[in-house]
Amino acid sequence: MRGRGVRLVTRPKGEPTPADFELVEVEVPEPGDGEVLVRNRFLSVDPYMRGRMNDAKSYAEPYALGKVMHGGAVGEVVASKADSHAVGDLVLSAQGWREFAGGPASEFRVMPPSEHPSHYLGVLGMPGLTAYAGLFRVGAFTAGQTVFVSGAAGAVGSIVGQLAKLRGGTVVGSAGSPEKVAWLRDLGFDAAFDYHDGRVMDQLRRAAPDGIDVYFDNVGGEHLEAALDSLVVHGRAVICGMISQYNATEPSPAPRNLSTLIAKRLTVQGLLVGDHADLMPDFLEEVGGALAAGRLQARETVVDGIESAVEAFLGLLRGDNTGKMVVRLPEGTSA
Amino acid sequence: MRGRGVRLVTRPKGEPTPADFELVEVEVPEPGDGEVLVRNRFLSVDPYMRGRMNDAKSYAEPYALGKVMHGGAVGEVVASKADSHAVGDLVLSAQGWREFAGGPASEFRVMPPSEHPSHYLGVLGMPGLTAYAGLFRVGAFTAGQTVFVSGAAGAVGSIVGQLAKLRGGTVVGSAGSPEKVAWLRDLGFDAAFDYHDGRVMDQLRRAAPDGIDVYFDNVGGEHLEAALDSLVVHGRAVICGMISQYNATEPSPAPRNLSTLIAKRLTVQGLLVGDHADLMPDFLEEVGGALAAGRLQARETVVDGIESAVEAFLGLLRGDNTGKMVVRLPEGTSA
Repeated sequence: MRGRGVRLVTRPKGEPTPADFELVEVEVPEPGDGEVLVRNRFLSVDPYMRGRMNDAKSYAEPYALGKVMHGGAVGEVVASKADSHAVGDLVLSAQGWREFAGGPASEFRVMPPSEHPSHYLGVLGMPGLTAYAGLFRVGAFTAGQTVFVSGAAGAVGSIVGQLAKLRGGTVVGSAGSPEKVAWLRDLGFDAAFDYHDGRVMDQLRRAAPDGIDVYFDNVGGEHLEAALDSLVVHGRAVICGMISQYNATEPSPAPRNLSTLIAKRLTVQGLLVGDHADLMPDFLEEVGGALAAGRLQARETVVDGIESAVEAFLGLLRGDNTGKMVVRLPEGTSA
Repeated sequence: MRGRGVRLVTRPKGEPTPADFELVEVEVPEPGDGEVLVRNRFLSVDPYMRGRMNDAKSYAEPYALGKVMHGGAVGEVVASKADSHAVGDLVLSAQGWREFAGGPASEFRVMPPSEHPSHYLGVLGMPGLTAYAGLFRVGAFTAGQTVFVSGAAGAVGSIVGQLAKLRGGTVVGSAGSPEKVAWLRDLGFDAAFDYHDGRVMDQLRRAAPDGIDVYFDNVGGEHLEAALDSLVVHGRAVICGMISQYNATEPSPAPRNLSTLIAKRLTVQGLLVGDHADLMPDFLEEVGGALAAGRLQARETVVDGIESAVEAFLGLLRGDNTGKMVVRLPEGTSA
């Protein structure tokens, strides 16, 4: 059978454009022994995907040109020749931007049934665990400390801030629009600002006049420079993302204040969620519990239809999303 | 009584000049109860002093204008009204660039007699402990790893490289002249290069084609950028100094590759020796032992006379020294 998928066809220079992608019909094999066929319900678009579009050695292979974009997806098993998977099972997989996915059952992790299957791509998935591991393990945040998170209205940032509040911290967030800033205040952030409203360094100094203990970086550049300025002695910066840099064709000159690392004995550490899979049980208990109890909000920006996947991704890089950006595909009654 | 001292009289803009200092006669009080009078034998000039000449909040107060330059010195007690200190004792103190120092005995630490009292300002003092703590504690270096150290012919760098060799590492060093590079090879460095001979990034890639585990940074800027490029996954950069930046009036745009922190989950951490005083006994045992056994070289660049202290310091910032730069004062028979 066949279904639609989105391929990367050219490596973007700077900001990606729709012409870098194509929507095509792709063949989906009928399941053989031990295999399943899945109808995807939600596709994930994530900032890290921009990096993998470059032809540069990194932690993962670059995306192959002419192949369907890889990435997280949740869907429903519609045919199974594996004992482990039944038709109707909800599964999480990594085959990316395609309507149907198929292959060995081991590539499709069966998830508990959920009213919000897209949460497995966000608050209860990779972005949520990233927030949890970055704040608590890499950032070594503890109650009573002050955290600054950039990209605070994004999938990761919004969880970072809420987790810090739940564990007794003071939280400052930056975001890119008045609406996002208002939402951060709704979430209980102690302070929030729009980085368009003035120098980040000045706004952060005003928001956290006594400094910050932990910086959770999703943005890089001027935000990192401002954070280094505000971090206290022995403070820690967790480098999770640098979305301000991903489309850059020339590297940013900031931060220009790295010598402050010495005077304040700061630690700046990069984070990839894959190093922290062992935290998954603790994460699911704490974050899943808080979510179920209504003590944590998991907002999503939902775009409909695989034909909108590229636009969703481009919008993500522009900051159009509040919370996790997902692409919703229609339910079907059969394959 | 009186003795000569060197005062800071203006805050340097960019590279300091002799006009920023003045050599003056200063009053040295006769010791009162519990006090001592010391004739200094060696004065320390160190890169960190440049930072303290700026009027900027940092880990230590800026130097006061019109006061004698503070810093390490070793000398001999010439008068004592303290039971703890006898005339002839060798003492380490922090009163800086002056021929005579005096005050409460507690400010003058009695050191074991030594044929090389200046070692207490270098290999067996602050720079040596900096190297030890930075390499082993902050850098978490272990046998079999590859270390890159910049400013490798300096007081700290030359100890870093030798300690890494003694503990079974592979060591690459950079320095600023062919003579220094030759000395690094004499010290047993596996590779050494002159950073004037080409892009640091290119030279480092050639010297350590399989990457580096630990970078010990004394230089900053392009050196740090190159090191981030060469660090392996989970590699660590110890930021001890950024001498390339100290005279900068505009912050450096490098490193421009900070996003590699994420892909490689690097840790970049600032180091101040004051945090690591607890390591002193271990340090003295290992480094003192290696020095006594002739397994570690402690080269010095010695400049004579307090009237040369400013020139020694300016030369240090220009990289005139190989090993520790000290100012030697004449021996005296009495105060």
